[in-house]
This record gives sequence, C-alpha cells and structure tokens, in this order.
Amino acid sequence: MNRDVFNNLKALFNPKSLAVIGASASFGKWGQLIFSNILAGGFAGRVYAINPAQESVYGVKTSKSVKDISDPVDLVFIATPAETVPSLVQECADRRVKAIVLITSGFSETGEKGKELERDVAGICAKSDIALIGPNTMGIIAPYASLFATGTHSRPIKGKVAFVSQSGNLGNQLIHWATKHGIGVSLFVGTGNEALLGCTDLLEYLEEDINTEIIILYLEGVDEGRRFLDTAARVNLKKPIIVLKGGRTDAGRIAAASHTGSMGGRDEIFRAVCRQAGLLNVWVPTELLDLSAGFSCLPMPRGNRVGIVTLGGGWGVVTSDECNQRGLVIPPLPDEIIEAVGRHLPPFWSKGNPVDLVGTTDPRAPVAAVEELLKWDGVDAVIGLGIIGRLEVVRLLVDSTRKADPDIREEFLDRVIGFAQNYETEYVASMVELMERYEKPILGVTLAQTSEGTVRPVEGRRYSGVFYQTPENAVNALARMVQYQRRVGYLRRSS
Amino acid sequence: MNRDVFNNLKALFNPKSLAVIGASASFGKWGQLIFSNILAGGFAGRVYAINPAQESVYGVKTSKSVKDISDPVDLVFIATPAETVPSLVQECADRRVKAIVLITSGFSETGEKGKELERDVAGICAKSDIALIGPNTMGIIAPYASLFATGTHSRPIKGKVAFVSQSGNLGNQLIHWATKHGIGVSLFVGTGNEALLGCTDLLEYLEEDINTEIIILYLEGVDEGRRFLDTAARVNLKKPIIVLKGGRTDAGRIAAASHTGSMGGRDEIFRAVCRQAGLLNVWVPTELLDLSAGFSCLPMPRGNRVGIVTLGGGWGVVTSDECNQRGLVIPPLPDEIIEAVGRHLPPFWSKGNPVDLVGTTDPRAPVAAVEELLKWDGVDAVIGLGIIGRLEVVRLLVDSTRKADPDIREEFLDRVIGFAQNYETEYVASMVELMERYEKPILGVTLAQTSEGTVRPVEGRRYSGVFYQTPENAVNALARMVQYQRRVGYLRRSS
Repeated sequence: MNRDVFNNLKALFNPKSLAVIGASASFGKWGQLIFSNILAGGFAGRVYAINPAQESVYGVKTSKSVKDISDPVDLVFIATPAETVPSLVQECADRRVKAIVLITSGFSETGEKGKELERDVAGICAKSDIALIGPNTMGIIAPYASLFATGTHSRPIKGKVAFVSQSGNLGNQLIHWATKHGIGVSLFVGTGNEALLGCTDLLEYLEEDINTEIIILYLEGVDEGRRFLDTAARVNLKKPIIVLKGGRTDAGRIAAASHTGSMGGRDEIFRAVCRQAGLLNVWVPTELLDLSAGFSCLPMPRGNRVGIVTLGGGWGVVTSDECNQRGLVIPPLPDEIIEAVGRHLPPFWSKGNPVDLVGTTDPRAPVAAVEELLKWDGVDAVIGLGIIGRLEVVRLLVDSTRKADPDIREEFLDRVIGFAQNYETEYVASMVELMERYEKPILGVTLAQTSEGTVRPVEGRRYSGVFYQTPENAVNALARMVQYQRRVGYLRRSS
Repeated sequence: MNRDVFNNLKALFNPKSLAVIGASASFGKWGQLIFSNILAGGFAGRVYAINPAQESVYGVKTSKSVKDISDPVDLVFIATPAETVPSLVQECADRRVKAIVLITSGFSETGEKGKELERDVAGICAKSDIALIGPNTMGIIAPYASLFATGTHSRPIKGKVAFVSQSGNLGNQLIHWATKHGIGVSLFVGTGNEALLGCTDLLEYLEEDINTEIIILYLEGVDEGRRFLDTAARVNLKKPIIVLKGGRTDAGRIAAASHTGSMGGRDEIFRAVCRQAGLLNVWVPTELLDLSAGFSCLPMPRGNRVGIVTLGGGWGVVTSDECNQRGLVIPPLPDEIIEAVGRHLPPFWSKGNPVDLVGTTDPRAPVAAVEELLKWDGVDAVIGLGIIGRLEVVRLLVDSTRKADPDIREEFLDRVIGFAQNYETEYVASMVELMERYEKPILGVTLAQTSEGTVRPVEGRRYSGVFYQTPENAVNALARMVQYQRRVGYLRRSS
C-alpha cells in the first residue's frame, strides 16, 4: 500500500467531512441505516447528504452530487445501486475525495458482469489513490472519531481492539456483543469484496494506528498469502493478532465459496502459517470476544501457573480440569502460603489450590486470598470464581424474604442490596489494584448472567476487571494469553 | 435401595407436611435461607418451624421439637450444628418421619470425628428406612410440589429435566441458569456427602418418576461403581443421562479430593464406563444446560444431516465448520430443493446449503426456507441463524432514527418495534409447528443476548422453540443428540 493510500485510510477513519450518496429517510434502506447512524452517533465533522430526489434528509439539506459541494469532502459513503457506482466514483475522484466506503452490493459476488463493474470501480480509485473499502461492505466504525457507519447501530466504547471482518454480518454481530460486554473498540471495518484494499492493507494501517493494541480478524480467504504472512508476522510482535478463519472444514469451505467467493486454502496450511507467524488461531466467534477482553484489559501472564480462589468446591474442580486440559498448571501450595491464606479463612478450609472460601462470611477474605496467591512467586495468574455475580443471588433472597415476611422493613432489605452492590464495586476495584501492584492477571468468573457484561472498567486505572460468565471462557482466554507470550517471546528472541 | 426407602424418597419430593429444624428469621443463616425459600415458594402442604428459642418465625408458630408436633411430618430439614444432629435425627425416627434433608455441614468432609458423627446419623436413618439426603447438602427443589428448598432462591418452571449434583454450589448455579433460560425442571437434588443415599439411588428413583424424562448428573466420584454402571445403563435406555464428571485431570482430581473427599478414579475408566452404558459425558457445566434444552424441547434427530438457514453468510460458514468438526454433515441441495427454496428468495441467493437469506425483506422467506429443507428427506435437522435476536437490532435502529429525526412520529416507531416483536413470536410458533409436522428438530441461534433465554415455549405444544446464543452451542447440542440416538439405538438393538 503506498503512502498516499495510507494517508487516505487515515482520513477514512478520521474524516473532517463526509457525504452519504443515497442518504434517505426511508426506514430500513441502506441509505437510511447508514445516514441515521452517522447522525445519531454524534460525528463531529461536516455531514453532507446526496440525494437528487429529496430537498433534505433528517434536516440536512441535500446536494444533487458531490460535484455540488464546494468544500472538500474527505470520505464518501455510497449506497445507491451498483450500475450507478462507477460514474459516482469518478465524480469523487474528480473532487479529490480521499476515501470511499462502498456499501452497495451486486458486484463480484453476483457473477461476471458484477466482476467487471467492480474492476472499473477499483481502477478509478487506484488511479487516484482513493482508499476504497468494499463494495458489499456493511460499513465501518471509528469510535475515536464518533463515526458509527454500519447497518447495525451498536455504539462500542473507545478502546484498544480493532476488528477487521470479511463478513459484514458476522463482524457487526461481534461489535454488537463487544458493546454489550464493555469491550473497547478502536476500529471496525467490514472489508466486503476487497476490490482494492484488503485485510493485509488494514493490518499495515493498524500497525501504526495509535489507538489499536489488539487486532481481531475474521477471514474467509486471503489474496497474496506471502504478503499477508509477512505483514501479520511483523505486526503480531507488537500487537497481538487473533484470527478466526471461516472455511476450515470441507462444509465450511463450500459455504465460504458461495459467500465471499473465496476459494480458501487447505486449513492445515493456514494453521501452519499462523503458527509460523505466531498468530492466535481460534475456533469460534465468541473466542474473539473473550480474548479481546483478556488481552485488552489485563496484564499478560509470564507463565502458565494458576491459583484458583472459589466460592464453591465443585466449580474449583471443574476449573482445575479445564486448566489442566489447556496446558495450565495448578501448583500445590507450599506450607507458608497455606499458612498465609489460612489466616483469612475458617480452620476447616481446603488448605490447597484451589482455595475454597467455604462460604466464609468475612467480606475481606476473598480479596485477601487472591492477594496471598498473587504475592507468591509460584503463580502467574489467578482465577476467581463466583464473587461477582452474587448480587444476583442476594436479590433473589431478598425477594423471598419480603414474601415470607411482608412486615419486614424495606430499609433493611435495601441495605442488604446496597451492601452487595458496594461489595461488588469494591471487589472489582481491589482486583484492578492488585493487578497493577503485582502485574499478574486476575480472571473473574461470575457463574451468573450479569447485566454488566464481561469488562468492568475502574476510573483512572490502566487495567479493567474482567469477569467471564463461565470457567471455560476464562481458562480459554488465559491459555491463549500464555500461548501468545510464549510464541512471541520465542519469535522475538530468535529474530 | 429397598422399596420402603423408595417410597420415602417419593414422600421427600412430594411431602404432605414438612418441618424445618433451626428455622430462623436471622437473615442469611441456613435456617433462614431454607425456611424463607419454602414459604415464598408457595409450598402447599403444612409447614412447621422448629426453634426452641423463638415464639414464631415469619408468622409461623414454632415448636420446640418434632416430638411436639402431633400431626404426621413427612419431611424434615435440619440446619442446626452438627453435634445436635444425631439426637434430632433419632427424634425424627421416633416420630416416623419419612425423609430428612440434612443441610448441616461439619461431617465426613472435616475429618475423623465428623465421619463418626455421619456414620451415626446414617445408621439411625438406615434402621428406620428414612430417606436421607446429605449431610452437607445445599438442598432440594421439587417444582411439581412447589417445594423450593435451596440456599439459592431460584424458581425453575416445571419441566422434564432432573438435576442431581454432588456439588451443591455448582448444582444451584446450574438451576439458576436453567431458570434464566426457561429450562423446565422436574427435580433438583444436591446429594452432599451421600451418607445414605447417593446418585445411584436417585437414578433408581428417577427411572420411575413420571415427571422426569432427562437426567443431568454432576459427579465427582461414585461408590459401588458396578451398581452405578448397571443402573445408569438401564435408565439411560429410557431417559437420556447426561453426565459431567469433575476430576478428569490430575489437577481436577486433587481439587475433588479436597472438596467431596472423593478419590475419583482414572478418567479413562469413567469415560469407558459411560461409553459402554451409552451415557453422554460432557466437558463443562454449560453443556449440561444446552443439552437439557435440546433434549427436553425438541424432537430427536434420526440422523446427522443438517440444513442451515442463515441471515448472514459468515455465520453460515462458521456453523458449517462447527458441524463438520462435530461429525454432522451439510448435504448439498439437489436441483429440486434448490428450485423449491429459490421460489422464496431473490434470484441472486446462494443456491446451496447453507441457505443464505441474503437480507431478503419478504417476512415469509425464513419460515418457507426452513420448511422446504425440513420437508426434504435429505436432512435430519435444521439450524436457523439470526432470525430471533433481530428485534434487538431493530431497537437500536429505532433509537438512532429517533435521534436523527426528533420530529418522527412515535407511533411509526412503535409500529416498527411491534412488528419485529410479533414477527419473533410468530416465527417461534412456526418453528414449533414445523417440528410437530415433520418430527425433525430445528435449532435456532440468536446471535445476540436476548432477555428471553434459550427456551421459548408455545402454549399447548409438545415441543418448544430453542434458540441458542451461538452456533457452537447449537451444533454441540445437536451433535450430542445424534450421538445419543446412535448409541442407544445400537444398545437397544443389541439387547
């Protein structure tokens, strides 16, 4: 990617002005989806609507064409039918537009005629160094520019994770989940048909993007395999790249061929490439989210030894099993650590790892137990099970108590709920503080569906609390973080 | 288990009267947790509170002892300290109490003295054929008797799935999840230390329990392995048994030993036993729930061939991969099926399996596409991706549109939401109807966190809609159902 295109990509994700060709108030049309999202998302630059058939759209006076806008336009979204696109793109080129997001479908994914049309469009853009995303893309999100321009109106918070997806639908849904789970996003791009710019170009861009520290890729196929490998290997040493490759089985490959037209390659080759480059290759979309949360909010583990603190014995057993299965070690506790932890627990505690809190009612015990383990140089990470999520159980108990005793003072029950709420808030703050103090990750497990989602930020702190719903999700995230550290450590040493 | 104990177990789960020894209004104590739960849960039989230090608890006049209750008492809960238990149990025996749930901990899990105490208690119960659950149990739930008697105050709906757990905490959390996901429960038992009755006894009971059709077990260790195997193998032919065994790795075994004192056995042996008996042996607790939903709400698949209908191409690819990986086949569509499905879709659709709905706006298309696949004798099940869950996306779009156009008529936006809501409701009803018509399972995937949970019942119907959040969860449930059908088919033929 040449430097002019690179700079134009920069303008794409941080435009001073933008125009939507096909902007519309007709509910559910692409021109409406994109335009209403941009307006509602609070984009701070100038916004133009282009629609020759309307006077104004949502209070924005329309122009007939980009040619009619006298000020410079950095970025243009196009959502009009395929056959109108080449001349519109030519007009953009004439007006020195820097970047185009081509939402319109009906190009190479539909056959020969569409392929030709797509080649024309790509040719015009290439000649003018226009940064072209698409066609057939579901849009982009750039939270740092308050630019939300996708069909799905999620509003992820600003953060460190960039999502690049060859499937718009899957990418949008990932962003939707990321938003629900409080995962901070630096950029989202649905690359669509990649007529001009593809995943490798975006990797080059993200390598230099100051907001991005972790990169998530959903791929179905990669052109220029060698260039992808070299770029990914280089970028991955600085910013972890986590990849899901659709089409790793015969059935998946057939589905991918009819979806993005990608012919993929044999999965073993792709996996070998990832291994060589040190990329993390995951199996299902939700892993992308779990790893996003872990990599972006926690310190990296320096090894694979795990301390477990649990509110219930059974969960400790299940988590130990998952850890072992994934190559993580649950070291036995030496006498001095048993003694140190034991100072905070009833005498009949488990005296081992996992540390079973055996329903202790001392509210300081869970934090103290976690800290004793973190302090010890025998563990590289702690998994804490079932402290966060208890509020849910307290709420149920309060409901029952009110039913059993209609005369009970509401003030008392409010105080109980308030105590549980505060306890959770303070526990999250303690975990974040401990992570800063000891530079070791703590992965929480809620064991309940909480409304707060996975990530719990703490004002002014470098790390955030991360609370997965299940042990397997926490263990998987930790195992992958360990894997990344090892591979990249090895690659760094050997380079 | 002799017949008297069996009948007493029956009384345990459907008592005419019960007493709580240690009933208390002291918030958070076990005697309060259990007693308030029983009262609030609406148990219809007589309830007695036993507490010599109180006049009444939550408006229930207390007795000093079971001896002071003149009417018969079927079931007694005990939540007083361990040392008080043997004489209390003796009093129960004298009063011909049929069953005891012994919540109290501090028995065999704490050492030699506790073991002795536990032997005493078990001895008294055995002599009188009292059905004893525990000690060290977190309680029981019998929804058909409106009897909710656990520390966690979940209120699962009546249903077909029995949960038996050697870990109370894990079991309670499973029930909590089951409640959130609308999974119907026939019984829950935390077996605790299993001083007298254990998992095998409960299997014998559940074999005859008319409400139970599916059995979920969380085990850490089984005494009398041969008896367990024989019983489980027999019961499993009638009622699928799904097992999670804690302690399948070295770390897990060590954790289990300190938790339930179980010495477990080598995992390979347990897995071989399960295979021989045809039980489904799963890896993580959430699988128990996913399989509960699938087995209890859907017709069983007759084979492993899957049709996929998807709102987005990428998700179709990912789901195909997961299917293939799990031994499910995605058959190509013959011309007549392509033609039949194509009648409902735009001309540029994928013309293959997965059927990509390519964002068609015809609201009848998704149901029609599912039906064309179900009708065809080339598939045994359909997975439908992303119809349910769209409401969530519509809500976001409506929010944006309102922001972009503050003058828009609220009535219009309400109508949009109403349409999306109705659409989901009707879609669920259609899926259930199609399952009844074709006797093939349809597994939905929401691709979004919906507030309704996994199971969506339809009034008066045998099956329910089942909508998992992710493809991997749906595929896993289906793969396990196929596995069960095969194993049990084979076992039935060869027996």
